[in-house]
Amino acid sequence: MATVDFMEKVIRNTPAVCDQEHIPMIVCSVPQVPDRTAAIFGQGADPLPAMLDGLARLERAGVTCVAITCNAAHHWHAALQAAASVPILHIVDASVEALAGKGIRSGAIGLLAGSGTLQVGVYEKRFAQHGFVCITPDAAGQAEVMRAIYLVKANEFDEPAAILQRHAEALVAKGCRQVAMACTEIPVVLARVSADLQQLLLDPTEALALAAIRACLPAASLRPSEPLATA
Amino acid sequence: MATVDFMEKVIRNTPAVCDQEHIPMIVCSVPQVPDRTAAIFGQGADPLPAMLDGLARLERAGVTCVAITCNAAHHWHAALQAAASVPILHIVDASVEALAGKGIRSGAIGLLAGSGTLQVGVYEKRFAQHGFVCITPDAAGQAEVMRAIYLVKANEFDEPAAILQRHAEALVAKGCRQVAMACTEIPVVLARVSADLQQLLLDPTEALALAAIRACLPAASLRPSEPLATA
Repeated sequence: MATVDFMEKVIRNTPAVCDQEHIPMIVCSVPQVPDRTAAIFGQGADPLPAMLDGLARLERAGVTCVAITCNAAHHWHAALQAAASVPILHIVDASVEALAGKGIRSGAIGLLAGSGTLQVGVYEKRFAQHGFVCITPDAAGQAEVMRAIYLVKANEFDEPAAILQRHAEALVAKGCRQVAMACTEIPVVLARVSADLQQLLLDPTEALALAAIRACLPAASLRPSEPLATA
Repeated sequence: MATVDFMEKVIRNTPAVCDQEHIPMIVCSVPQVPDRTAAIFGQGADPLPAMLDGLARLERAGVTCVAITCNAAHHWHAALQAAASVPILHIVDASVEALAGKGIRSGAIGLLAGSGTLQVGVYEKRFAQHGFVCITPDAAGQAEVMRAIYLVKANEFDEPAAILQRHAEALVAKGCRQVAMACTEIPVVLARVSADLQQLLLDPTEALALAAIRACLPAASLRPSEPLATA
């Protein structure tokens, strides 16, 4: 659903008046990639080979730019970029640009994220370079956030939405200027919160979509595809 | 948005409790494919070469089954299947199965469809083989339906939803047992009609998603990808 959410945000934010003005997308949604969080904690298979395989499928299909709709997967961003012949956008750089677009250039940012994303500091390091301090739920709260994320992956929506809204509000109460929905399952279920809370939420998926549009327009097109090797 | 709608319906209808149980999808969303309706009326470029190119990209990326999220494009289904090494599902066959699932095996079915889809009888021929008679809006009504479809492609939602709901109700009033939303833009905007009307609507996109799930489960996987020809 995170991939679907990203695609929808690309389409809705593209200034198009007919099919042909929309941006071509090749999407490789392979849920069998080993769990990124488990791998970060040393409890599961390394997802990098599967991600490299996906990257190769996309390059073979002719993409000119890549977006990764998983925050924890950005732990492997440098390794993927080193293997790629096309640029791979970074969701945290896109988020910094989105904060600047809201006029926010320093201060405390809340992180609702998977435990793997927090463990390796996907956001903290890049945010610190731009003058932001990250605030996260305490250990008990983080366990609830993680449970909510896995409920979304199991096609549950109402219960995780309630959990995540409560923790977003708690981070705002702690003084966060914005709360980043830093796991791509989260904006899927927090899309319908009140307008008051909505304006305090930073949506990295939407930020990544806007970065992809900037990278691909004008003149969005695929490279010619390679000839098919077999009949 | 039609492609996004299809993907969402695959995901929501898959009995999965974690990422890894979902079905891998490679998606080639290339809005630059020439307009199918215009081509059917001899007013635009032939879309078949672009569709064959998309098919080749998908096969190269390792798919085992193909779904086409455009009803009018099914005019070229036989030509695409002849060029393919993997099965291509047919949205009308999937719709017939969905009607059977609702216990409906004969009678009048309304068609809310693009004018190209109607012109070449994408639904009428296969539905007739199964004992269904198709009823469509009159010429003035069809012009409104077509205008609503192009509004969706331009990212408009409220106005086309109102137009399409009115014509769905008119087809029910004419005695249709179900109204097929036979253009993949239509279920995108008719998702929130009342439950009473909803149960009279047939969603070919959902039917196609269910057919794709049946074709891919159990043991959903991609073929090994071909080696990348260039470094």
